[in-house]
Amino acid sequence: VLDFLVDLDPAGGRQAALEEGVRRAIVAGRLTAGTRLPSTRALAKELHCARATVVAAYEQLVAEGFLTAERGAGTRVAAVQPLVTPPATDLRPPSTFAADFRPGEPDNSSFPRAQWLASTRRALARAPDDLFGYGDPRGTHELRVALASYLGRARAVAADPSRIVVFGGFAHALSVLADALRHLGLGEVAVEDPALPFHPSFLRRAGLSVATVPVDDQGLRVVDLRSTAARAVLTTPAHQYPLGIALAPARRTALVEWARQSDGWVIEDDYDGEFRYDRQPVGAVQSLDPERVIYGGTASKSLGAGLHIAWLVVPDVLLEPLVETARWRVGVSAVEQATLADFIASGRLDRHVRQMRLAYRRRRDTLAATLQRAAPWMTFCGISAGLHGTVPLVETGREREILTNAARRSIGMHPLSAHYSDGRAEGLVLGYSRPSGHAFSGALGRLDRFLSDVSVQSS
Amino acid sequence: VLDFLVDLDPAGGRQAALEEGVRRAIVAGRLTAGTRLPSTRALAKELHCARATVVAAYEQLVAEGFLTAERGAGTRVAAVQPLVTPPATDLRPPSTFAADFRPGEPDNSSFPRAQWLASTRRALARAPDDLFGYGDPRGTHELRVALASYLGRARAVAADPSRIVVFGGFAHALSVLADALRHLGLGEVAVEDPALPFHPSFLRRAGLSVATVPVDDQGLRVVDLRSTAARAVLTTPAHQYPLGIALAPARRTALVEWARQSDGWVIEDDYDGEFRYDRQPVGAVQSLDPERVIYGGTASKSLGAGLHIAWLVVPDVLLEPLVETARWRVGVSAVEQATLADFIASGRLDRHVRQMRLAYRRRRDTLAATLQRAAPWMTFCGISAGLHGTVPLVETGREREILTNAARRSIGMHPLSAHYSDGRAEGLVLGYSRPSGHAFSGALGRLDRFLSDVSVQSS
Repeated sequence: VLDFLVDLDPAGGRQAALEEGVRRAIVAGRLTAGTRLPSTRALAKELHCARATVVAAYEQLVAEGFLTAERGAGTRVAAVQPLVTPPATDLRPPSTFAADFRPGEPDNSSFPRAQWLASTRRALARAPDDLFGYGDPRGTHELRVALASYLGRARAVAADPSRIVVFGGFAHALSVLADALRHLGLGEVAVEDPALPFHPSFLRRAGLSVATVPVDDQGLRVVDLRSTAARAVLTTPAHQYPLGIALAPARRTALVEWARQSDGWVIEDDYDGEFRYDRQPVGAVQSLDPERVIYGGTASKSLGAGLHIAWLVVPDVLLEPLVETARWRVGVSAVEQATLADFIASGRLDRHVRQMRLAYRRRRDTLAATLQRAAPWMTFCGISAGLHGTVPLVETGREREILTNAARRSIGMHPLSAHYSDGRAEGLVLGYSRPSGHAFSGALGRLDRFLSDVSVQSS
Repeated sequence: VLDFLVDLDPAGGRQAALEEGVRRAIVAGRLTAGTRLPSTRALAKELHCARATVVAAYEQLVAEGFLTAERGAGTRVAAVQPLVTPPATDLRPPSTFAADFRPGEPDNSSFPRAQWLASTRRALARAPDDLFGYGDPRGTHELRVALASYLGRARAVAADPSRIVVFGGFAHALSVLADALRHLGLGEVAVEDPALPFHPSFLRRAGLSVATVPVDDQGLRVVDLRSTAARAVLTTPAHQYPLGIALAPARRTALVEWARQSDGWVIEDDYDGEFRYDRQPVGAVQSLDPERVIYGGTASKSLGAGLHIAWLVVPDVLLEPLVETARWRVGVSAVEQATLADFIASGRLDRHVRQMRLAYRRRRDTLAATLQRAAPWMTFCGISAGLHGTVPLVETGREREILTNAARRSIGMHPLSAHYSDGRAEGLVLGYSRPSGHAFSGALGRLDRFLSDVSVQSS
């Protein structure tokens, strides 16, 4: 019932985050009057925080009238309108940091505005009138043709334009896909453990149950899929999120074999496949069996999350149910689709990705050097690709201490434990794409000074 | 179980449409092996077509291996893979007509390409870098400010930018809203009868049950809402779809009163509110009680459906659950939002709407004159606003006859009966916005010749 707490940003303090999460859930009607909350002990364990934090949060919420606490009856959601009016909607802008090493967004100052405008101009000049009508629910033909060619050459995806469906971002794609899979009779989907927290959340929200399968140093433990009831698995084979591992070749084959034997599907989230630095690019698993692998990609990392555009390449048997669901849900701007089609077909996307790959590689190298100098006891892992890496922390409680202190010095990063189903491993997840080019070295300097202090305290 | 058939376009023949609908449902897994289909008699009644049509469709599908028919066991979905491989996905382009009087899309040749590009240029030049990031799940601040001002002056909506949420089209808005209402405990929503077929379909698809409330010459019969269990009603008060009636003033007040008394909501679909010709504009019902009315608008009629952009203005209590659901579903291109914000704030939208209002009014007048001359026995109703009108037909069977013959002469229109829950009233729904400006008089000529023949046959 407290699923939503997984996504809370603990930077502002666990207690405040917990209070706010419960308040919002009550105001939004997700927690209804009379609902019994977990015991402080159970919740503390689940959230991987001190029991005192939960006790304090509950007490505050009782004082505000959101909860009631009675001996024997436990803590419950209050039936009365809260006495203190909560902030009606918590839509504050997200936290900002002077040095923002949170992964998730590329350098937004590098968005190729002039090139994008040029593609818009050409797209608008060339478009037939019916571009402005409802159109094909899969997306415009031109964009699907451009994507098929791009994905084939950049990611070795076996992509036929007729099998591509365009969505309003990967979250949208996943919600529609989950819905379609549920309509096809799937009840359970496996996710990697650790994973991006939104993966299991979205699947549950779509009414599916979620099994977790551990990741080792070769990537997803495919053999463990067999002990679940899942007939589909959501996975990040090119660059496991957050650990950064590329799925081992034998595992890639085994994964597809598992899908065939269980009459199921692999959902391949290729969120940052364009960015690989030290080895040959790892092609998409999808090419091993396009009838068993659903390939998902997005422009969120290569161009910008604000474009809200993503795509799936789907097996033939899934196309119709998927389109049927997508039809009910949303359309994607046809002008933007036509613009992106031109941006790809004209070679601009390839050029932009090539430039950004060089820039991010340089950032990765300087970040790794900074860590090495300021905190030689830290190991920066999973960095041969993508836009982030992880630093494992062995000592219990260290993660929260470092994150809290970093936030005080206005340095943002993500806790590794939040990516595990049981929070079992601590660590830091550090992205290096977010600061703008000119701000990156300043951010690094701030991190350097902070980590030097951490080192001293820990030794 | 055969809900999807409602949306079939009967222009290509009822039997073919029925066959195709069943085939697609089986292929998509919506009709599973062993499912018993309705009797031919029941289905014919439901679809408002001849029983022989259903019998012939069933026979064809049995021959193709999709259905089995056994004495006593009725007609069922076959367990075996169909012998004839169906077209895997029916994604053919929609029917085209030489004279397209189907309502639903504005004149796409009038999309203001140059003005839109100019707004894109300004938006890209001015945007802060974080426009390209994930952003506020309600939509960009600039667009919500521009919309609040536009909706206030053009539609008398009491709109605070913080209460506006931007979606990827009205279908998207409705699916998210339905989801949020269901999470708030609503089980049943009322729709108008007749209504746009997608209204009840979408609500059912979102897991809500649907009550139908009749429409009379003053619009929705608000008093009949009280005999349903619904706590929300989806309605088109400015220009009832498809009948074109403006909700009578006393009914507007009664509607809001009903929402207050039942602790419920009015969902106001203001799909073509900008286009009113003969009277003062009818302001939005929303202004009577912004806490009880959810106002929905879209750029689909004023600019183009291909933009896939729409908005809701929501009561405070609904904002948080709505945004929470929207967050999981989709984002809308931030570049498009910034472009539309500039397009509105610069006055370009007002100018474009003004021009199109004049153009559509002229089209309406010439269409009405054509009907008057070619088929004086027809009455063209509900035409003081919007982009379509209806012609009621009293004689049973006339609707299908006219539509079939029109389709043979490549003239497109919609059947009125498809908008009724029980198909009880026949008629034609004629839009006049779809043909491009230069093609409109040719289309009218074709309609004129066709209707002259119809007149002769019917007299």
